Amino acid sequence: MNLFEAFQLQWKQKFSYLHPHNCTLLVAVSGGVDSMVLLHCLHKIQFHIAVAHVNFQLRGEESIRDAVFVQQTCEKYNIPFYLKTVNTQAFADEEKISIQVAARRLRYEWFEQLLQQPYFKTTPNAFIVTAHHANDNIETLLHHLFRGTGIAGLQGIPSKNNQIIRPLLFAYKQDIIAYAEQNKLQWVDDSSNKKHDYTRNFIRLQILPQLQQHFPNIDAILTENIERFQEANLLYQQALQNHFKKLIQQNEFGYQIPIELLKKTQPFTTVLWEIAKQFGCQSAQLISIEKLLDAKNGSVVETSTHRFVKNRKWLLIQLRSNPINDFVTIQKWCNQIQYAAGKLLLNKVPVPEKFEANNHTIYIDEAALQFPLIIRKLKTGDYFYPFGMKHKKKISRFLIDLKLSLPQKENVWVLEMNKKIIWVIGYRADNRFKVNANAKQCIKIDYLK
Amino acid sequence: MNLFEAFQLQWKQKFSYLHPHNCTLLVAVSGGVDSMVLLHCLHKIQFHIAVAHVNFQLRGEESIRDAVFVQQTCEKYNIPFYLKTVNTQAFADEEKISIQVAARRLRYEWFEQLLQQPYFKTTPNAFIVTAHHANDNIETLLHHLFRGTGIAGLQGIPSKNNQIIRPLLFAYKQDIIAYAEQNKLQWVDDSSNKKHDYTRNFIRLQILPQLQQHFPNIDAILTENIERFQEANLLYQQALQNHFKKLIQQNEFGYQIPIELLKKTQPFTTVLWEIAKQFGCQSAQLISIEKLLDAKNGSVVETSTHRFVKNRKWLLIQLRSNPINDFVTIQKWCNQIQYAAGKLLLNKVPVPEKFEANNHTIYIDEAALQFPLIIRKLKTGDYFYPFGMKHKKKISRFLIDLKLSLPQKENVWVLEMNKKIIWVIGYRADNRFKVNANAKQCIKIDYLK
Repeated sequence: MNLFEAFQLQWKQKFSYLHPHNCTLLVAVSGGVDSMVLLHCLHKIQFHIAVAHVNFQLRGEESIRDAVFVQQTCEKYNIPFYLKTVNTQAFADEEKISIQVAARRLRYEWFEQLLQQPYFKTTPNAFIVTAHHANDNIETLLHHLFRGTGIAGLQGIPSKNNQIIRPLLFAYKQDIIAYAEQNKLQWVDDSSNKKHDYTRNFIRLQILPQLQQHFPNIDAILTENIERFQEANLLYQQALQNHFKKLIQQNEFGYQIPIELLKKTQPFTTVLWEIAKQFGCQSAQLISIEKLLDAKNGSVVETSTHRFVKNRKWLLIQLRSNPINDFVTIQKWCNQIQYAAGKLLLNKVPVPEKFEANNHTIYIDEAALQFPLIIRKLKTGDYFYPFGMKHKKKISRFLIDLKLSLPQKENVWVLEMNKKIIWVIGYRADNRFKVNANAKQCIKIDYLK
Repeated sequence: MNLFEAFQLQWKQKFSYLHPHNCTLLVAVSGGVDSMVLLHCLHKIQFHIAVAHVNFQLRGEESIRDAVFVQQTCEKYNIPFYLKTVNTQAFADEEKISIQVAARRLRYEWFEQLLQQPYFKTTPNAFIVTAHHANDNIETLLHHLFRGTGIAGLQGIPSKNNQIIRPLLFAYKQDIIAYAEQNKLQWVDDSSNKKHDYTRNFIRLQILPQLQQHFPNIDAILTENIERFQEANLLYQQALQNHFKKLIQQNEFGYQIPIELLKKTQPFTTVLWEIAKQFGCQSAQLISIEKLLDAKNGSVVETSTHRFVKNRKWLLIQLRSNPINDFVTIQKWCNQIQYAAGKLLLNKVPVPEKFEANNHTIYIDEAALQFPLIIRKLKTGDYFYPFGMKHKKKISRFLIDLKLSLPQKENVWVLEMNKKIIWVIGYRADNRFKVNANAKQCIKIDYLK
């Protein structure tokens, strides 16, 4: 099986819901061999694509040469090309972060903005595609291990993460190069941001070659390890859910945990950490939460989001909420509304031929739109008509069926119009507001975390 | 806290049930700094100890020098000293195994034999103690990772494993050396078997020093990782038990699994592997078991111990048992009886002052001993009087309470005398045969896997 066939197979296994007719892809192309091969494969399966290239200005003339090369390739393929030139060094200095963190932030923030361009609004789905491959995955595994990690860090790079997909994770660098050579593709040398990642280079250029000499199959072995760790993590999460169910009880102010039962839980430290983490606890703070279990009555530990209180036999967990931020009123049309849990993007679009199921996007008939719109937290007694259903349902009941985690439930917001809930944001639209056949124009509302 | 205090704390946390008055220790001493520090600590807390040293004859004069050094140290401390000189190279050649595997087998097999010496029979418990430390643990983690592993392999070296305990696993090499210097201990250079472990040396001498340069805290980080992975493994096992309970049903011939339910299980591959492994499946064979689920009715895959049969909607699992091996009759006194699941060691001993709870050893009054003894597999309807209880109990019921895994249950053996079961071997003695105050001499029976 050559790389292109393997690519198609992977796509079928992991991204079968994305077809050329329902999806537009923004391909991140540095001009290096990985991204040129990715572009070639996506072009070959006739996806609706555009290319984004960032000039990080870290290698002077060479950076310009790369941008020109990618642009020319896009012209040849007849693909829309977006270029952004950034001052990475200045941004890193200003934000007091490393060059590689700066480059990553500049890159992904711009990509997400680009997805709002009209070009990506012509299909129901739009994703960013990056060319991370199996060797990147191996480096990530080792990097996490050497930096300190639990089982979550052993899973490597996710093949899908919000709006980003990575369909080349199955491929080894050597196979990517072989494919490029067989297909007489051109490419420029490695992407600029990689060169500045000192730790990654240490693992890639110094440690891995020595390991490869001693363990000739190390690449395949570590890739298999990652698959096994992903499955192990699933079991880990299943067991955690069981512990959560036994330990965490809802009360009128938030949650409560019986301290004696918590103390007897095996494995204690990990279960405590996984609970505390959900409520805003940082790893350095875990020890204070552990001490709280034996502290005197009324003692308190506060995380960035929650307050942990020792109350006799109970550990109480309450949201540190600021009611002022829990209610946003929109009086007139605007394209973008920021609120505490994310933002909503509003766009006027033609009525789509087919509505794809997607809880992060709703469509309403423009003629039905009425201001003010209200974005607010859930209230007791809130109900709606779940999309596709004829009967109304209490939203609290609806959330129980979704099996949300407790902090997820606490952070559910609704969009209200004319005293009716039209969207449990990010979870389900209301059936009463679905677009019918007479609609002339739609409002598309996207939710971004 | 100095190393000796930390050693005492560790002992309290992990081995609190072992005291100088109830336990004799066989300390494996190469003469290197680790084992000399271990010996010093154990001597200081006044344990009843003996020393075992193996001359592997891999370094000529130096090997002899080490043996003499350890012997002289024991004379100084007034500790019994056991020496065994082996031809490691010849053994490795003969068994077609590597030098380090040969050395390990020679070492541990001899240690287990030594535990049968009268010296170790004077206390209810006897353990082998080795000087593995935190850096050994880190090397083991990396070695497993590079060789390919699931989550089980990320847990490093167990601090207790059958008859071996490792109380120095908390200590870093540098702290061990500092302790030896502070206490003006003498030692000889590294143990002979380590020098021949090419892969270990590669990790210890080549990879880890480079990692330490780049990640100055790597030793502490990897040690913490190991602790986290141990807890993660506990959660992994808990989730597995849940899947087993849902999937595996007992039937009159063995076990059966509903194939559709198995196929829907998430994570499929890991759960299938963890089931198949229990029934003798090797990793290379897993793919045939997976294919069996879709094979035609009546298809069979055999592992070393079991037979997997596709039977319509069911996967049947049956023991490949050889009835001839399931029954051993002992007509007259002998010290050692080998059978399919292990061996029993019989010794005449004085009546102990105190009987420690230990399911691997029973005592019966010599006067009550009657031949023939029968070692056999469990039969339907077998019952006994569990030690400490007045009423009889069906052994099948007793095993359910113990929560044994299925293959463990299949491999339960009993010791029968005069048509009565006197021991569910390895699990519980019978109350009717406990030694009473009038006994003059005892038979001590040890079970070894």
